[in-house]
Amino acid sequence: MLQKGIAAAPGIVLGRAVVKKAETISYIRKTIAPDEVASELQRFRDSIQTANAELDAIKQKAKLEMGAEEAQIFEAHQMFLQDPEFVGAIEQKIESEQINAEAALEEVRDSFVSIFESMDNEYMRERAADLRDVSQRIMKKLLGISDELDTGVEGPVVLVVHDLTPSDTASLDRDKVKGFATNIGGRTSHSAIMARSMEIPAVVGLSDITEHVQTGDLVIVDGLSGVVHIRPDDALIAEYEEKQKAYQKQKAEWAKLLHEPSVTADGRQVELAANIGNPQDAVQALESGAEGIGLFRTEFLYMGRNNFPSEEEQFEAYKAVAVTMGERGVVIRTLDIGGDKELPYLELPKELNPFLGYRAIRLCLDQTDLFKTQLRALLRASAFGNIKIMYPMIATLAELRKANSILEEVKAELRDQNIAFNEKLEVGIMIEIPAAAMVADLLAKEVDFFSIGTNDLIQYTMAADRMNEQVSYLYQPFNPAVLRLIHQVIEAAHKEGKWVGMCGEMAGEELAIPILLGLGLDEFSMSASSILRARSLLKQLEYNKMEAVSKYVLTLGTAEEIRDYIQQEVLNRLA
Amino acid sequence: MLQKGIAAAPGIVLGRAVVKKAETISYIRKTIAPDEVASELQRFRDSIQTANAELDAIKQKAKLEMGAEEAQIFEAHQMFLQDPEFVGAIEQKIESEQINAEAALEEVRDSFVSIFESMDNEYMRERAADLRDVSQRIMKKLLGISDELDTGVEGPVVLVVHDLTPSDTASLDRDKVKGFATNIGGRTSHSAIMARSMEIPAVVGLSDITEHVQTGDLVIVDGLSGVVHIRPDDALIAEYEEKQKAYQKQKAEWAKLLHEPSVTADGRQVELAANIGNPQDAVQALESGAEGIGLFRTEFLYMGRNNFPSEEEQFEAYKAVAVTMGERGVVIRTLDIGGDKELPYLELPKELNPFLGYRAIRLCLDQTDLFKTQLRALLRASAFGNIKIMYPMIATLAELRKANSILEEVKAELRDQNIAFNEKLEVGIMIEIPAAAMVADLLAKEVDFFSIGTNDLIQYTMAADRMNEQVSYLYQPFNPAVLRLIHQVIEAAHKEGKWVGMCGEMAGEELAIPILLGLGLDEFSMSASSILRARSLLKQLEYNKMEAVSKYVLTLGTAEEIRDYIQQEVLNRLA
Repeated sequence: MLQKGIAAAPGIVLGRAVVKKAETISYIRKTIAPDEVASELQRFRDSIQTANAELDAIKQKAKLEMGAEEAQIFEAHQMFLQDPEFVGAIEQKIESEQINAEAALEEVRDSFVSIFESMDNEYMRERAADLRDVSQRIMKKLLGISDELDTGVEGPVVLVVHDLTPSDTASLDRDKVKGFATNIGGRTSHSAIMARSMEIPAVVGLSDITEHVQTGDLVIVDGLSGVVHIRPDDALIAEYEEKQKAYQKQKAEWAKLLHEPSVTADGRQVELAANIGNPQDAVQALESGAEGIGLFRTEFLYMGRNNFPSEEEQFEAYKAVAVTMGERGVVIRTLDIGGDKELPYLELPKELNPFLGYRAIRLCLDQTDLFKTQLRALLRASAFGNIKIMYPMIATLAELRKANSILEEVKAELRDQNIAFNEKLEVGIMIEIPAAAMVADLLAKEVDFFSIGTNDLIQYTMAADRMNEQVSYLYQPFNPAVLRLIHQVIEAAHKEGKWVGMCGEMAGEELAIPILLGLGLDEFSMSASSILRARSLLKQLEYNKMEAVSKYVLTLGTAEEIRDYIQQEVLNRLA
Repeated sequence: MLQKGIAAAPGIVLGRAVVKKAETISYIRKTIAPDEVASELQRFRDSIQTANAELDAIKQKAKLEMGAEEAQIFEAHQMFLQDPEFVGAIEQKIESEQINAEAALEEVRDSFVSIFESMDNEYMRERAADLRDVSQRIMKKLLGISDELDTGVEGPVVLVVHDLTPSDTASLDRDKVKGFATNIGGRTSHSAIMARSMEIPAVVGLSDITEHVQTGDLVIVDGLSGVVHIRPDDALIAEYEEKQKAYQKQKAEWAKLLHEPSVTADGRQVELAANIGNPQDAVQALESGAEGIGLFRTEFLYMGRNNFPSEEEQFEAYKAVAVTMGERGVVIRTLDIGGDKELPYLELPKELNPFLGYRAIRLCLDQTDLFKTQLRALLRASAFGNIKIMYPMIATLAELRKANSILEEVKAELRDQNIAFNEKLEVGIMIEIPAAAMVADLLAKEVDFFSIGTNDLIQYTMAADRMNEQVSYLYQPFNPAVLRLIHQVIEAAHKEGKWVGMCGEMAGEELAIPILLGLGLDEFSMSASSILRARSLLKQLEYNKMEAVSKYVLTLGTAEEIRDYIQQEVLNRLA
């Protein structure tokens, strides 16, 4: 039996299923005697404490395995455990109504959840989901239910679940779980992103696969073409063993390109760089063949803590990456916080449209102390390697000038204090707002480089929130409007002798690379795991032909035509 | 004494102030005897009923004076009066705690407000403000406090208030109140928009004017330059009487242009049209010199009711405008609902970024029954005048084609049924998404006209929510990126022989008109009250010179330089 879904992370795995449907936990509602109230309260407080300790551990694990940003969600959970409104209401119920903690928890949870959900608002629904998740955790503590997936299944396991919650993901035994299949989710859902970052084959959006698989069933997860085979016969298993070998072989081929330059068949060299989120990632980037860091997000330094990172802390982190990368370029993006990314210790306005709000450079130009500390740390670190500074979310020439003038102030201070920094340090900007793309000719005169941030550029150009499923059909990297903007940004930069990179998801996409190459993109920055495949593809492409191809696709009317053209006329014709 | 604020609505008024500070209402908390509970409950229910009746009246008044959209807010207030959670909690408190209704109301209000406000979310904060407003109304009923501004001040009155709530505005005695001055607000705040629609001079954002003025003080509100003079001396009064006369004279001069064509000094003719929100507005548009309707928003038909308007109802409304306008063009925009505009009877997803969400044509292409009913009504009405259909929020060629194919289906049905419609009816689109502007050349081949919706186009191009004060500095109509997009849209349309209008606020701005004229805009659609002033300005401009001016400003780097240039080199040089 076969089920079709969405290929979320590449690779093929054959293993026994462990099925986890939506959990139902039952408890008995009890009234308690007045003299039991104190011990019941204690039992409740113990469960809160255990849950809190568990979340601490999960948070640490998540931070190590998935990065600080992913770990944040568990802090949101912990906040409920510390919320006097929530915890207090439960305690009060135990006391005043003399009922057991389970009943009090459920009633208070339900009333909070129903308030949150009645808010009719995406943000509050997420809080409701968080509250359910954390209440479930407390309930399990109260009932003594273990969280472990103890299934008795031997060998490599494929997790078949309705959805993968952040708690599930973080508590996974990564030595055992070798693949995922989920009922819900899309390519950019939480579970899909997790699977890719863990390099585990995954298929998501399978509708009702949990209904068709039993724990212990043999399943094949084909994360290359987005299908799951349930209880495959021997012939199919043999076929997939071949496919798996072929994929392994291809990966081995790619591995040979580790120390090769990134050159097209007709000799055009570009740079393949990695996007990273913390200093340790730089090591993996090198091992994956990265020729530089095209985007080092600095948010990890600011998240999952209670105060701003000091200049010294930042300096050490930036320096570490610079030293790891040696002569290779390291593009470090200044703080891109705000919007959907919040810091507990930075009071930010709540906004109706956070993606169109107060964030990134807008915030840094307003809160200059914050910005200056980061710039100082970046400049000091620049003495130890090839650091380049990049400002996010620049919309206007005035913003660029203001940012640069603050940078000049900081440089002057360092010179006064005889503190070393790279006087020739390159400074560039993200092009991720349509306004910036439209005046790229003006901006190009005042920067050293551009890096096109396609994730945001596409969403603003199309006026479609990429997280919103109902308009996801408009999130089109191949829309001619997007390609034309990219084209004019590259043209404008080259006219001023500046280089252009791209650090959105698009830079690593097989369908996009021929076009971007043809448009003249100089640097492609992507997740480290995509670099070798991209290098292999580049080796097979001819720059001269891709120039003509890209010129042609700019005249096409729809994203669909463009994708089809590249697939049929370029990719399908490769060896 | 003089205070500077933001000019919110033009005109000059001299009058006695009526100051209304933030109200503080006090009541005595009382415990009530068990046998008083029933009568206290009754008293509370009476107050709810009176408040509800009051809101009904205010809603009707608001609908007539300000339009259906503005009236909607009072429905939100009424919903609280009908909310069993809210009303029920108060009743329960009266019963179980045996306290008077005032105390119960305040406690429940506070607990709801604190929940809403703790949500840390703009949407919920607004709900909190609504709840405060409606609770205040109930409290006044309970205490027998009248809402009227009974001040003993004779003659024309200038309202000096902290802020003008929708309730305040709607209950105003318009024969008496001749001007506003408020502590808070900006050009696009609720109070400013109200003032303009009521054509009452207003200055907003005056910080603390309520602290400096006493009821009965003489004040001058200068809504032309954005200042308020408090207790002016005779010289100043004389000066302002002159200014007022000059303004009246200018208005009289403008009035002479009522039936004149809109022609530049060197003979280029353009169309000055009006934006309207309901059929009655068309009459006023004609009286204000409109040569057509550039934007007829159809949302009024859908709002403030409990079900979709029938085809017949819509047909009558569209026909009414078509008949009123005779041969003049009437551009009717298909439903632009969703995002921040909600309908109680249409279940819409709550979104994190509603401005980047499921709305307008996206919704209509998805819910085609809704769309077809409107198209049928529009087509039928097209037999009675010069109706043109316009789709909002088109981002891609595929969307335009889909909308047109649905229109063709509806036309075929009408032909089958022998129902008349204008076979030559023009069909156009709003250009309000950067993607559409970027592929205007492709879109132009498949439409009859464009209308540039600058309000949205600017916010998407700059990635800045125009309602968000913290990024309002980025909402720049004169940003070169915006002007370049407008330029390329007009060029693309003209190349295909199609006309281009503009129906955003920008089309009526004195600073923008010279540039837009120079860029070749064919139709300027604005609020009716701006038309004669625009016609007067056009008469003084030379198209040939403005062509050169606009070409030049496209090379400037910042919005500021462009504004300065137009002010100094164009406007200041006029007679």
